[in-house]
Amino acid sequence: MSGPVAPTNLHSLTRPKGFSVASGTCGLKPSGRPDLALIAADAPCPSAGVFTRNKVKGEPVKVGIRHLRASGGMLRAVVVNSGCSNVATGEQGRRDAVAMCRQVAETLGCATREVVPCSTGVIGRHLDMGKVLPGIGAIAPRLARGRQADADAARAILTTDLVPKAASRTVTLGGKRVTLGGICKGSGMIAPNLATMLAFLTTDAAIEPAPLKALLQECTAGSFNRVTVDTDTSTSDSVLLMANGAAGGRVIRKPGASYDALRDAAMDLCRDLAYQLVCDGEGATKVFRVTVEGAKHERDADRVGRSVAESPLVKTAVHGGDPNWGRLTMAVGKSGAAVRPELLTVSVGRVCVFKAGMPTRLTATEQRALTTAMAAREVPFAIDLGLGGGRCEWLGCDLSREYIRINAEYTT
Amino acid sequence: MSGPVAPTNLHSLTRPKGFSVASGTCGLKPSGRPDLALIAADAPCPSAGVFTRNKVKGEPVKVGIRHLRASGGMLRAVVVNSGCSNVATGEQGRRDAVAMCRQVAETLGCATREVVPCSTGVIGRHLDMGKVLPGIGAIAPRLARGRQADADAARAILTTDLVPKAASRTVTLGGKRVTLGGICKGSGMIAPNLATMLAFLTTDAAIEPAPLKALLQECTAGSFNRVTVDTDTSTSDSVLLMANGAAGGRVIRKPGASYDALRDAAMDLCRDLAYQLVCDGEGATKVFRVTVEGAKHERDADRVGRSVAESPLVKTAVHGGDPNWGRLTMAVGKSGAAVRPELLTVSVGRVCVFKAGMPTRLTATEQRALTTAMAAREVPFAIDLGLGGGRCEWLGCDLSREYIRINAEYTT
Repeated sequence: MSGPVAPTNLHSLTRPKGFSVASGTCGLKPSGRPDLALIAADAPCPSAGVFTRNKVKGEPVKVGIRHLRASGGMLRAVVVNSGCSNVATGEQGRRDAVAMCRQVAETLGCATREVVPCSTGVIGRHLDMGKVLPGIGAIAPRLARGRQADADAARAILTTDLVPKAASRTVTLGGKRVTLGGICKGSGMIAPNLATMLAFLTTDAAIEPAPLKALLQECTAGSFNRVTVDTDTSTSDSVLLMANGAAGGRVIRKPGASYDALRDAAMDLCRDLAYQLVCDGEGATKVFRVTVEGAKHERDADRVGRSVAESPLVKTAVHGGDPNWGRLTMAVGKSGAAVRPELLTVSVGRVCVFKAGMPTRLTATEQRALTTAMAAREVPFAIDLGLGGGRCEWLGCDLSREYIRINAEYTT
Repeated sequence: MSGPVAPTNLHSLTRPKGFSVASGTCGLKPSGRPDLALIAADAPCPSAGVFTRNKVKGEPVKVGIRHLRASGGMLRAVVVNSGCSNVATGEQGRRDAVAMCRQVAETLGCATREVVPCSTGVIGRHLDMGKVLPGIGAIAPRLARGRQADADAARAILTTDLVPKAASRTVTLGGKRVTLGGICKGSGMIAPNLATMLAFLTTDAAIEPAPLKALLQECTAGSFNRVTVDTDTSTSDSVLLMANGAAGGRVIRKPGASYDALRDAAMDLCRDLAYQLVCDGEGATKVFRVTVEGAKHERDADRVGRSVAESPLVKTAVHGGDPNWGRLTMAVGKSGAAVRPELLTVSVGRVCVFKAGMPTRLTATEQRALTTAMAAREVPFAIDLGLGGGRCEWLGCDLSREYIRINAEYTT
């Protein structure tokens, strides 16, 4: 793998009906690249957000949480800037984040609380509001739909990412064809940017704010929370989902078949975006997928998946293409999950390398299959704990010298 | 720092009265370096062990736990081999570990259960008992005391370590001068060795098995469990402490002033050894010390210390000499501990870089002091959470390209 590859079709956020996007450049990045994006529904609509669990939160995150609550989960727009994260900026930072929302609200004719702000980039510096506010004023009247607008928005939210990330899905709910779209950014936490993971999702499905929030939490837990580049958690991570109901059809008010179908499509979309994130991880040259089965319960499965995906020894083994079952069993054992080595099975691709407490004896054919699996761009690890029904999947990327270079040689 | 430096004086295990050591080469390492060590008390004495929490445990660890229990915590000797860890070897592995103990017992004239075995090195391979048993038979009659014998033993337990590690301390208990000594090995978990952390400690203090066990647990928690090279946990980690009472004086039977004094000396010794481990961490070029204060309780202090010491972004910042307060506050925030950013203070050396939710404005003199502190061989980070009395100290090492090279290019 010579580097991450952008999806050929970036048509995403405005594939669902009733959404439009705008983006542009106000001058926050030294590179002069686009740094502003606006995602808007035609009218305020049910929306949900999931935010970083880091206790040191950026000011825009705090304002976003407050606006979502104050609006009863009904948003008109999300405004995003890259180049400056507005983190560790105190009271002035809070006022600046609110001012971004007010500027959008004035242009679109909605309430300030119906807008959520997101910022990503250098931390510890104040936003240059002399650039940001006119910038928002300039792009807001140019909201548009279509492939090009989406592609531009996907690029405007990037910081250290190498490629833009976007995806979309369709699903039929009660006879109505519903569309979901999303973009995201993030490639590790490169300082001083703390390169935040941001994801913005839209759908024309009809669903009330409460089940929408549950759905987004489920999907985030099963996708973005199960990928890891370097175990670190940004102070600004945010996932936002707006659902305007423009596709028509019955409004989803509670769990049931329609909720499940929408959740599955959204999960699939989020996993696609999460996969793109890992592929673009700092210094990543390879991706690995950890499939865990047979755990005592899902929580244990998650522990094992995380432990394997985050282990620097597993990550370097993937980098070096070394089929090192010892590192895999070590990472399983240290996970904190219930493990009985004599019931544990570990496979790389279709080759079982560890079983019943012992490494397996491989035939020459199996040895070759193992070498091929480890050399692939995507390495599949399967772990069966043999204890119960808990299962999950994690994604990780390898750890390379390039990660060290990026993160050690960057000087604030 | 051009690499770890061995202590000039390796006199350690046999500084306390009534202990002797022997070591030699039986041919388990391709390099032909020494691979066998024996540590013996003149008679069975109160002993304690702390072992890996990894649920995949090596056979010698399981045998060691059983022997300590069966002997009522009264050991005569510890036998160690390097070059082969006897991990993931099943029933045969268990029998081999017991056979090592039996061979020692027959030569020294004690019970098999009074001997604990430790093995470190390649995993998934059976011990070559045709070499090990005669090897033990050859060194056991050559038990000796003194600087050279200790230095040889410290070298015989090494695998990928660059230098031997040893230390000693003295303390006066109720008018009696008591001595403690120790050696250890470990430098990360290099595959396929899973380069285990092993530490062996001796003292001529008089103390019963029960308080000795409590003391060793306290000391391990405050030293070896607060250092990190790469977050991974070996399947064979073991710390063993033998206390033969040869210094004379009242036997310590419960907590009190004598217990506290002995515990403090042992803690100091263990921290010295742990520091030597970190300095010899795989690819390490620098060490950093994380002092946490003002946490709600000690558990929270520990969470913060661990989170900072394990963060790859902090480790790469130390490697690059970048005074990146953003990464430090991020690592504090993601630790899971109670954190109120407005009460948080972060300092590098004597320079405060973050206070009251904001980065501090540094004078030119402070900037220079900061650069000097980050460039030092040992970087001191101080974190005050401003919430309570919880405190602790963690040690970590930087993350370098050399770590990647060692762990990615090693082929099983």
